[in-house]
Amino acid sequence: MSSLSSSTHCRSYSSSACPASSSCNYGHHRTAISSISLKQLLPRKVSVQSNTKARPNVVPIKDGAVAATVASIENETPSNKLGDGLLSITLPEEFKDTASFDINKDKSTVSITVVGASGDLAKKKIFPALFALYYEDCLPEHFTIFGYARSKMTDAELRNMISRTLTCRIDKRENCDEKMDQFLNRCFYHSGQYDSQNNFAELDKKLKEHEGGRISNRLFYLSIPPNIFTAAVRCASLSASSANGWTRVIVEKPFGRDSESSAALTDALKQYLEEDQIFRIDHYLGKELVENLSVLRFSNLIFEPLWSRQYIRSVQLIFSEDFGTEGRGGYFDNYGIIRDIMQNHLLQILALFAMETPVSLDAEDIRNEKVKVLRSMRPLQLEDVIIGQYKSHTKGGVSYPGYTDDKTVPKDSLTPTFAAAALFIDNARWDGVPFLMKAGKALHNKRAEIRVQFRHVPGNLYNRNFGTDLDQATNELVIRVQPDEAIYLKINNKVPGLGMRLDRSNLNLLYAARYSKEIPDAYERLLLDAVEGERRLFIRSDELDAAWALFTPVLKELEEKAIIPEYYPYGSRGPVGAHYLAARHNVRWCDLGLEQ
Amino acid sequence: MSSLSSSTHCRSYSSSACPASSSCNYGHHRTAISSISLKQLLPRKVSVQSNTKARPNVVPIKDGAVAATVASIENETPSNKLGDGLLSITLPEEFKDTASFDINKDKSTVSITVVGASGDLAKKKIFPALFALYYEDCLPEHFTIFGYARSKMTDAELRNMISRTLTCRIDKRENCDEKMDQFLNRCFYHSGQYDSQNNFAELDKKLKEHEGGRISNRLFYLSIPPNIFTAAVRCASLSASSANGWTRVIVEKPFGRDSESSAALTDALKQYLEEDQIFRIDHYLGKELVENLSVLRFSNLIFEPLWSRQYIRSVQLIFSEDFGTEGRGGYFDNYGIIRDIMQNHLLQILALFAMETPVSLDAEDIRNEKVKVLRSMRPLQLEDVIIGQYKSHTKGGVSYPGYTDDKTVPKDSLTPTFAAAALFIDNARWDGVPFLMKAGKALHNKRAEIRVQFRHVPGNLYNRNFGTDLDQATNELVIRVQPDEAIYLKINNKVPGLGMRLDRSNLNLLYAARYSKEIPDAYERLLLDAVEGERRLFIRSDELDAAWALFTPVLKELEEKAIIPEYYPYGSRGPVGAHYLAARHNVRWCDLGLEQ
Repeated sequence: MSSLSSSTHCRSYSSSACPASSSCNYGHHRTAISSISLKQLLPRKVSVQSNTKARPNVVPIKDGAVAATVASIENETPSNKLGDGLLSITLPEEFKDTASFDINKDKSTVSITVVGASGDLAKKKIFPALFALYYEDCLPEHFTIFGYARSKMTDAELRNMISRTLTCRIDKRENCDEKMDQFLNRCFYHSGQYDSQNNFAELDKKLKEHEGGRISNRLFYLSIPPNIFTAAVRCASLSASSANGWTRVIVEKPFGRDSESSAALTDALKQYLEEDQIFRIDHYLGKELVENLSVLRFSNLIFEPLWSRQYIRSVQLIFSEDFGTEGRGGYFDNYGIIRDIMQNHLLQILALFAMETPVSLDAEDIRNEKVKVLRSMRPLQLEDVIIGQYKSHTKGGVSYPGYTDDKTVPKDSLTPTFAAAALFIDNARWDGVPFLMKAGKALHNKRAEIRVQFRHVPGNLYNRNFGTDLDQATNELVIRVQPDEAIYLKINNKVPGLGMRLDRSNLNLLYAARYSKEIPDAYERLLLDAVEGERRLFIRSDELDAAWALFTPVLKELEEKAIIPEYYPYGSRGPVGAHYLAARHNVRWCDLGLEQ
Repeated sequence: MSSLSSSTHCRSYSSSACPASSSCNYGHHRTAISSISLKQLLPRKVSVQSNTKARPNVVPIKDGAVAATVASIENETPSNKLGDGLLSITLPEEFKDTASFDINKDKSTVSITVVGASGDLAKKKIFPALFALYYEDCLPEHFTIFGYARSKMTDAELRNMISRTLTCRIDKRENCDEKMDQFLNRCFYHSGQYDSQNNFAELDKKLKEHEGGRISNRLFYLSIPPNIFTAAVRCASLSASSANGWTRVIVEKPFGRDSESSAALTDALKQYLEEDQIFRIDHYLGKELVENLSVLRFSNLIFEPLWSRQYIRSVQLIFSEDFGTEGRGGYFDNYGIIRDIMQNHLLQILALFAMETPVSLDAEDIRNEKVKVLRSMRPLQLEDVIIGQYKSHTKGGVSYPGYTDDKTVPKDSLTPTFAAAALFIDNARWDGVPFLMKAGKALHNKRAEIRVQFRHVPGNLYNRNFGTDLDQATNELVIRVQPDEAIYLKINNKVPGLGMRLDRSNLNLLYAARYSKEIPDAYERLLLDAVEGERRLFIRSDELDAAWALFTPVLKELEEKAIIPEYYPYGSRGPVGAHYLAARHNVRWCDLGLEQ
């Protein structure tokens, strides 16, 4: 039960130490130098884009600046960074001394601006995550939070809104009310249009007041519809970027609808931002067990020989929701389940699962390996996709509406609310292993999991004991991402007793039983990472391109041919077509048996 | 949770079916033909010893006879059997029909004679196990149990003794009293000397009365001191062996004190018994999790690549008792812990663990592989053994006696009550992997387990998170044989939270939590196997020879050099010498950490 961690204190900006159990310090970054502490010691650096086309009339926001780049050199392999075409400064040895850690911490501040502050995501996820980070002493000592939106609102009204909607894991903890009051005192509101440089200039003025002459670091969280992404980035860049610290922008999906629109969006963002200023969030990457995936795989010898086509028969990535669009299908209908879940969440998990061992745990090394996986994959074929759409269903006297009963959805919509797909990675490790994906709304349960199905035992001495269905006897590793985080390994063993009956049991690690502490929300982790400049869990532009390249052809084909989805009842297990898809690749879904 | 077994009914001799959960049918023997049913259909066969020296004045007991040999042909690879030098009959195809299964079951009977019926083992283990088998409907329809000992006793007194001492897993089950009465009605007593042919002839007469003309199968359980083994076998063979069925003899350890005495005993037994009539019991082989060891290993693909020197750093076989000899050290002092535990129980488990995949699960195939392991092992060296002896210790006002305080033990005894040893298997799979054994009395806990320690992760990305002691981060598979049967796999995973702290968790299968049914005692399994002629869990003569060959030189050296044991306090963790032994082989005991 003892912890093996060697890092027990928190890289906290505030004076009080983080509780050890919620350490904000990433073990593998222990030796990183605070970017802030170096900023004033080094000459200002100008990032020079050496190999991209000239961009007239553009004043790039400089996250890059000195500090962040220097920090990057520490955190990343220098060659990567240089490869991005940025000139870099070699860090003098004396500054590598960790004693310089906190020298100027009181000279810097972080301002976090939530653009789209009155929206659902901001209320439900972003503000609660920020408060949780504050409660856990993971935010810098000097920080300010700004809400930005079109609606007129006072600071007090924003605070009232935040305090009313803050429901998070912290709610019942000690001194929660007191901490909340302190937190709300750091929250402010500014009303403005998303495409108004003037309004952002006003924001800039207010930010400066709060920054009070300290080194200013600014994080913008764009929680707004995609059609105004670029305008908001332009305005923030031109009118509200930091003059002497870093500026970073978190963007939420959708990142386009296909390769072309995604590339256009990236190009537009890059007019105003360097690559390392863009933090594309995929909140699934912030989930506890997705984070644990690499730990499991790379720190346990027992998985090392197993992780390839030689032992793994199929990998299944499963996402299901037990509710439909419920009157909010307007946005969804334009995207569908493949774009909404598969192309991002499930594909990201797949890439993390299947990548080769990275050189290190640093962001660029991991993202390099993920890109390699994505680029080794075959573009998805139409015959390897099944789509479905839920229809209304009455059960126990309750009537559940079909997808097209949603008033925000066109009556003749063919948008898939369910999809199953078989993907393949044509590399030495995974050649021929089907990676099955399945995602759907209005299914019989709510679940996200990774299931690794191992091959049959060659020459199994116990074949007779398994009867005719050998699939029931294969080992399986299940990583349940939500709900009830768990890892379990299905093994065959002997039923105690005088006979020789075998059955499958689980070698089980249920998080709730093992860890008393509640698990932080994915947004907390990701926001903290963005503040700390940790890019590991954010999606790089080339990753995004590669991901779209896989799905774009089939998405177009589905739409051009107006493929009719297979209808399935609300609350059911989804279209049976998914089984035929699996059968064609000689595997079966493991999540639908009597035993799970 | 569903069972994967394909065999759901019991190979019960009685009319009522065994409960499925305690099926007495071994799955891999489903197609075996009842030896009884064939007996009358085939010509009597004479076993001919073709390649051993002539034995004058000996009338061998014929287990061999017709039926058992024919059954063996079914259960075993014919070549093995022929290799034993016995002439065999080819079984006509029509008799292989399983329809012949129960034809003559009411024509046969089994008599079980417990020789040494008034002894401790008989009272505590043998009779309770027989009753449990009866309760579970695993004994033949016609059976008789005889107690045989020197003391005068009536049948009623024997029954009274049995009913008073019967404490077993059945005690609280339904109809237990009623079943007990039925059982006791089948129990009888005969008083006689162990070396008297006349007394055994009287027994034979009584047995015949109970057999009532049916085909007679006889099992003798020799629960007597080793110095009278041979005499009792001689008398049973000459005066009480079955005339028309099989005769089998179960013998308990000690099987000699060294290679020479063991060989002499085997030679003596073989004057009266064929190899396949001798059932050398090692009750550890009847333990649930030892039985499960082969299932785990051979029916789970995930263990297949791991089971070798490439991934396993050490294998540890640990036996500890939390009590001393407590006034009963007389027998023990003549043997010591190495002979009492290591040379048999732990070595047998080691052989099962380390053997190559057998051709089948049949007895001869498994025993062939076990012998290969034993013959590939280096004889144990003196420098690879640590011996200890417990001394008195006072804790919490209670004084615990030292070994030599036991009145039945000589004051100057150097007999080890603790030993640790490092053994090596010089074959391709295990070259260089230390198999550490540890066994002791009067230690701090009571435990028997197998611990498989895996190697470090090569190029571990997470090394920094583990601090300096990488041994704490290795994976481990633990198979706990007793108490609280369990299997668990120690893995590293991420502690939930915002940081990157790792710890070790257990993927855990605790039998008590998974299986509601109580686990049968080892003696039940072994007695049932002996009745059914299943030899898998009994020790063949060549296995025994190989086992003694490993330990005899060091045992002699210890005694000749009068090596003084390292003294350790009663109730402690044993001599520290065990740690230095492990350290010399570059491993550490895994059972003594804070976390187990």
